[in-house]
Amino acid sequence: MKKDKVSIPVVRRLPRYYRYLSELMRNQILKTSSSELSTKMGLTASQIRQDFNCFGGFGQQGYGYNVELLHDEIGVILGLNDLKNIVIVGAGNLGSALAKHIDFGKRGFNLTGIFDVDPNIIGKKINGMEVKDFSLITECFRRNPPNVAVLTVPRSVAKQTAEQLIALGVKGFWNFSNAEITIPGIYFENVHLGDSLMTLSYRITNHKEDEII
Amino acid sequence: MKKDKVSIPVVRRLPRYYRYLSELMRNQILKTSSSELSTKMGLTASQIRQDFNCFGGFGQQGYGYNVELLHDEIGVILGLNDLKNIVIVGAGNLGSALAKHIDFGKRGFNLTGIFDVDPNIIGKKINGMEVKDFSLITECFRRNPPNVAVLTVPRSVAKQTAEQLIALGVKGFWNFSNAEITIPGIYFENVHLGDSLMTLSYRITNHKEDEII
Repeated sequence: MKKDKVSIPVVRRLPRYYRYLSELMRNQILKTSSSELSTKMGLTASQIRQDFNCFGGFGQQGYGYNVELLHDEIGVILGLNDLKNIVIVGAGNLGSALAKHIDFGKRGFNLTGIFDVDPNIIGKKINGMEVKDFSLITECFRRNPPNVAVLTVPRSVAKQTAEQLIALGVKGFWNFSNAEITIPGIYFENVHLGDSLMTLSYRITNHKEDEII
Repeated sequence: MKKDKVSIPVVRRLPRYYRYLSELMRNQILKTSSSELSTKMGLTASQIRQDFNCFGGFGQQGYGYNVELLHDEIGVILGLNDLKNIVIVGAGNLGSALAKHIDFGKRGFNLTGIFDVDPNIIGKKINGMEVKDFSLITECFRRNPPNVAVLTVPRSVAKQTAEQLIALGVKGFWNFSNAEITIPGIYFENVHLGDSLMTLSYRITNHKEDEII
């Protein structure tokens, strides 16, 4: 039975399952079980079964899971087969690195443009894609507007940039700007790299690994 | 009363508190309360009070918190004043972008070196710091070895690179390699950018924002 409501912790675990299953596939492992997955992932087997039940369950009691089938079904749930148009706005250090480093096609997106406002950056090619003038974005996407934007602009201009993009039809942001923006009906996936680094600082400074894991 | 054991969700919230308090300071707000913080951060006021109690509490009932004091005390707990040496290993797209984009000094670290194995990258300058040959790292750090390394190498060589660095005295990793590495006594702070992007794909594909928040 599929549940309509899926909690955010469950949703956040799905990419992890997907990643582990991809690894099993690379190692040519055909079958797995919730107890095997639980050892690898530091979750309880019952939690894993519960998670999978949110989406209708994928296995038979006592038989385990077919790795490739489970991998592909989770991919469908994550929407990875249904490519959504994405643009990168802000082609500075981080924006260009993401353009080169991230395999958008494998993560459910089709990179259709890279934009900046800096005349020194406009016209440059990143992975064969020319950086375009942000002021021309409406024109560029008259017919086929992006669903999502990577927001790699400075915090000070993040909100106004987001609003311009929303006016264009953008529904979601992969937000690296460190600005906390809340706009009803719009999805913000915020990445705070500094938070992760400060967590590491805490762990190294306090040496409490055994206690906090 | 300070607790010895601090759970990982509490630790992960500390950088968020620190970030919000920095924002209040930028806006020259001097005092705040757990109920104000709770509205901004989407947590309950009682959870915030509980979190702060883990570290001995920072305020007086009914008086609220002095923003700067709270900010600075959380900074101390995170170890931000106690700069730890950090090196970047892997100066490709992502490694160089992090070198330029991240303010390590404000996050508890002192960037002391950038290393790569690629002859085309060795010798280049990133933010005025020359990329050095990874095979010389032991020599470079004979006297003052790094505590932490940013691991921006391909997944296939991540584990062996980590082991070399651990032999040098490295105790923690900011790991962008997507390799899941577990080594007793060593801290791995794993950043999976792809997981975050797939979560966004789910949210855009399933349009269930109201339900999952």
